[in-house]
Amino acid sequence: MSRRAVGTDFVVNAVGRRVPTVVNEKEQAAFAGVGAHEPQGRKQAPSIRSCRDYPADGDKRVSDLKTALKKCGLRDGMTISTHHHLRNGDAVALMALNAAADLGTRDLMWFPSASFPCHAPVIDLMDRGVVHHIEGSMNGPLGEYCSHGKMRGMGVLRSHGGRWQAIQDGEVPIDIAVIAAPTADAFGDADGSHGPSACGSLGFALADSIYADHVIVVTDNLVPFPCIPWQIQGNNVDYVVEVDSIGDPAKIVSGTTQITKSPDRLMIAEYVALFLRDTGIMRDGFSFQAGAGGIALAFVGSLKGLMKQAGVKARFVRGGSTQYLVDLMREGLADFILDGQTFDLAAVESIASDPRHIATSPFTSYNYHGKGNFASMVDAVVLGATEVDVNFNANVNTHSDGVLLHGIGGWQNCLFSRCTILALPSFRDRIPVLVEEVTTVTGPGELIDVVVTERGIAINPRRTDLLDSLKGSDLPIRPIEELKEEVERIMGGPPAEAQITDRPVAVIKWVDGTVLDTVWQVETGSP
Amino acid sequence: MSRRAVGTDFVVNAVGRRVPTVVNEKEQAAFAGVGAHEPQGRKQAPSIRSCRDYPADGDKRVSDLKTALKKCGLRDGMTISTHHHLRNGDAVALMALNAAADLGTRDLMWFPSASFPCHAPVIDLMDRGVVHHIEGSMNGPLGEYCSHGKMRGMGVLRSHGGRWQAIQDGEVPIDIAVIAAPTADAFGDADGSHGPSACGSLGFALADSIYADHVIVVTDNLVPFPCIPWQIQGNNVDYVVEVDSIGDPAKIVSGTTQITKSPDRLMIAEYVALFLRDTGIMRDGFSFQAGAGGIALAFVGSLKGLMKQAGVKARFVRGGSTQYLVDLMREGLADFILDGQTFDLAAVESIASDPRHIATSPFTSYNYHGKGNFASMVDAVVLGATEVDVNFNANVNTHSDGVLLHGIGGWQNCLFSRCTILALPSFRDRIPVLVEEVTTVTGPGELIDVVVTERGIAINPRRTDLLDSLKGSDLPIRPIEELKEEVERIMGGPPAEAQITDRPVAVIKWVDGTVLDTVWQVETGSP
Repeated sequence: MSRRAVGTDFVVNAVGRRVPTVVNEKEQAAFAGVGAHEPQGRKQAPSIRSCRDYPADGDKRVSDLKTALKKCGLRDGMTISTHHHLRNGDAVALMALNAAADLGTRDLMWFPSASFPCHAPVIDLMDRGVVHHIEGSMNGPLGEYCSHGKMRGMGVLRSHGGRWQAIQDGEVPIDIAVIAAPTADAFGDADGSHGPSACGSLGFALADSIYADHVIVVTDNLVPFPCIPWQIQGNNVDYVVEVDSIGDPAKIVSGTTQITKSPDRLMIAEYVALFLRDTGIMRDGFSFQAGAGGIALAFVGSLKGLMKQAGVKARFVRGGSTQYLVDLMREGLADFILDGQTFDLAAVESIASDPRHIATSPFTSYNYHGKGNFASMVDAVVLGATEVDVNFNANVNTHSDGVLLHGIGGWQNCLFSRCTILALPSFRDRIPVLVEEVTTVTGPGELIDVVVTERGIAINPRRTDLLDSLKGSDLPIRPIEELKEEVERIMGGPPAEAQITDRPVAVIKWVDGTVLDTVWQVETGSP
Repeated sequence: MSRRAVGTDFVVNAVGRRVPTVVNEKEQAAFAGVGAHEPQGRKQAPSIRSCRDYPADGDKRVSDLKTALKKCGLRDGMTISTHHHLRNGDAVALMALNAAADLGTRDLMWFPSASFPCHAPVIDLMDRGVVHHIEGSMNGPLGEYCSHGKMRGMGVLRSHGGRWQAIQDGEVPIDIAVIAAPTADAFGDADGSHGPSACGSLGFALADSIYADHVIVVTDNLVPFPCIPWQIQGNNVDYVVEVDSIGDPAKIVSGTTQITKSPDRLMIAEYVALFLRDTGIMRDGFSFQAGAGGIALAFVGSLKGLMKQAGVKARFVRGGSTQYLVDLMREGLADFILDGQTFDLAAVESIASDPRHIATSPFTSYNYHGKGNFASMVDAVVLGATEVDVNFNANVNTHSDGVLLHGIGGWQNCLFSRCTILALPSFRDRIPVLVEEVTTVTGPGELIDVVVTERGIAINPRRTDLLDSLKGSDLPIRPIEELKEEVERIMGGPPAEAQITDRPVAVIKWVDGTVLDTVWQVETGSP
């Protein structure tokens, strides 16, 4: 299968960004505004299979990944998906792509739910022509490779919900999904919470298991049928492959997650907690989401103290789950954890054993093309960003130098929370984080309600209700322009302009599949 | 929408039965043999929705069922589905159909997962033209109505797995699914194991929730989001309706399930248990399925004794779950219950609280158009039948008088077990159950391995392995012809011929969607 060069026609979208009309040979709709795009048509329809073509005894094991890929009809130009539950400890994605390389396959599209530094060897596979391009988050070395224009196709970055949407809507038909499973049975039922490589929820692989043409489960912990609980249903699985190890347990989950020690960042966390208290968002039965970053963890600690003081209990908490959320639930301060991803050992143990700790999926939590999702029911979410501008637009993908270094994760999806709070230092490495205009728009400002920095709290002027609720509060509420100017004064001016070319190397998709922004090739000599 | 009269062209299928080529205006494939039909095409693709069209706060409640049906765009000729988890205590199916009647709707197709005597008032709705016809099991009065040719369309009977297959394959597009939920939240997440009308698993509604155009959840136990656990995902639900009561708890689950007291039937149960022991099927790690009928319950009791004697433990047991299966698991004689339907209070309590008691769905258990299913992995299944013939063909739908009185349930799907055992008395009400040729073929003889009666055990000659394994056993193994002749001698001959016309009133579908047999209108004056 041959592929044309990337498209070169552009339009200016609803956030004023120039975006290509064709990406990887597919026509694109430009971002039209939040809630403006009306989806058409019907969901992806997998082909109908029959039990007559599968072993009656349920044993779908084959000897190795190469055999499984051949039986799945692996061909040049196919799309292979993998998942990031094993994070930087994952061995399975490379196993699968290397097996495809050994079979002489070329021009694959690799469709990971996210990539990590451990996946840097895919650069070699791209250089050799085995992998054509990547659609998925590209962290670190892969992002740099893409930014320097070395990838043949364009990168397509989607949120976790956007990835479900793209699969569900048939935008990305997956030929073969390879699912790393910490526990599985020979029928293909699989679970992530048990076994030597336990990682917690397998939610990111769920869409692939439902919609991919062929599904391979790879495990290092085969148990007799039935694998209980199962999060991946064997009825969607074609083949099961046993391997010695699916990854490095030490890198799959953290032993413990760490609260920030920086005084500035602790202050930011404290401001966020006080903000929730003083606005009245922290009330009995409320809900919040916080991730596993240092500030977010510190925020959970601060909020917990305030909740105890006030005698307030949350109905549910969401996250990247960690020891901190688990403790909150165990101490009776939250009824449920709705888990999007399981980050440390305490959280893995909890999801494996506590019926109040529930695995969710990008479908339940984030998919914008469903009949609602959980994200918009969360009272407050605490997120980070690499840049925020005076219109509250935010960037999580590039830095001010324009280099693609981070994925979107669930970040875009979480913006639909009732109160979206970005908690971030006003500068990093002497470069301002508050800017006139973000390098890349990952989230439109209309969805970002509050920016909390160590220098003060900026509230989006659209949220007059929040401003009103804080009358009489001691919190340092300040206009975002003022904060930005203060940081620029201290740092000696705004960040240097990114040295970029006019050649697009990746696009940032919005949650509805439209194109929100473009990532441009950086000039030779740039980082 | 007008409907033509039923088709009148027939073909003779692979079990020698004359079946119509068109049913309810849809072309049909005739049964071609077990595993002979190769499905084509892709699964049903629901239309893509967007969160923008659903309330951000997740509150999908509307005031009543009429409002919900109107908002779903109810029109003449639509297909409305409901589910039988509430069994003979269900109030929701009639609520929904009566609401449609009040709105002046006509010619609906009612698509229940099963119907019960409590649904007899649908006869009036058919007489009045509100309901055009029923596709689904018709027990008792509805079956008689159909048998007497009073229904405008043809009945289509499908197994539980066949119903999933028909929905999934797009054979039956559901316009509006109405799901009775013993517990739900305002977002539509729903569960069956808790609340005043608890019924256990909601697995039969799962396909409808995924594939129907519109989904309404009706509950009498609304809880704050999130409803944990959820078996129906709110992300598939359009509206939630609160009512005072979804049904009569006393008829939803049995207080207790009852073992047969008949000495003949107890003997049959004992024979089945001994058969499993003597063939070696009862071994460590084995599995079996037994329902909630009197003989099946007695069989579980007998087998339990033999398992204890032999020091043998099952890996999993399946059923219609009851106190007897729950006790087996609690006493350490089975690792897991894979629950298809939850029959009594003890089983409801167990599925609500014990992580080893797992709700399955017709997708995991029974759907023949998947990548395998659980049914073929079960070592032995114990089923009933209304008739069995000398070729081991069996009937569960009609009696020898030809009147349609029973649904298929999971019966056809279970035939794929490694050893399918029909346990039944050789006669009922002085009418032989063992016959020359069954009135209706619900299951082809090639899948039925053993027939156990109080007069002896007949083994299908295809199963030489079973015959070999019983050399030296004391069990009364006898040819099926001999058993049949003995019963006829005692009863004074075979059953009277059914008095039927040449007009088809219903078809029996096979698990792959092909037509296995026809039910014919009975002569006026027949029962």
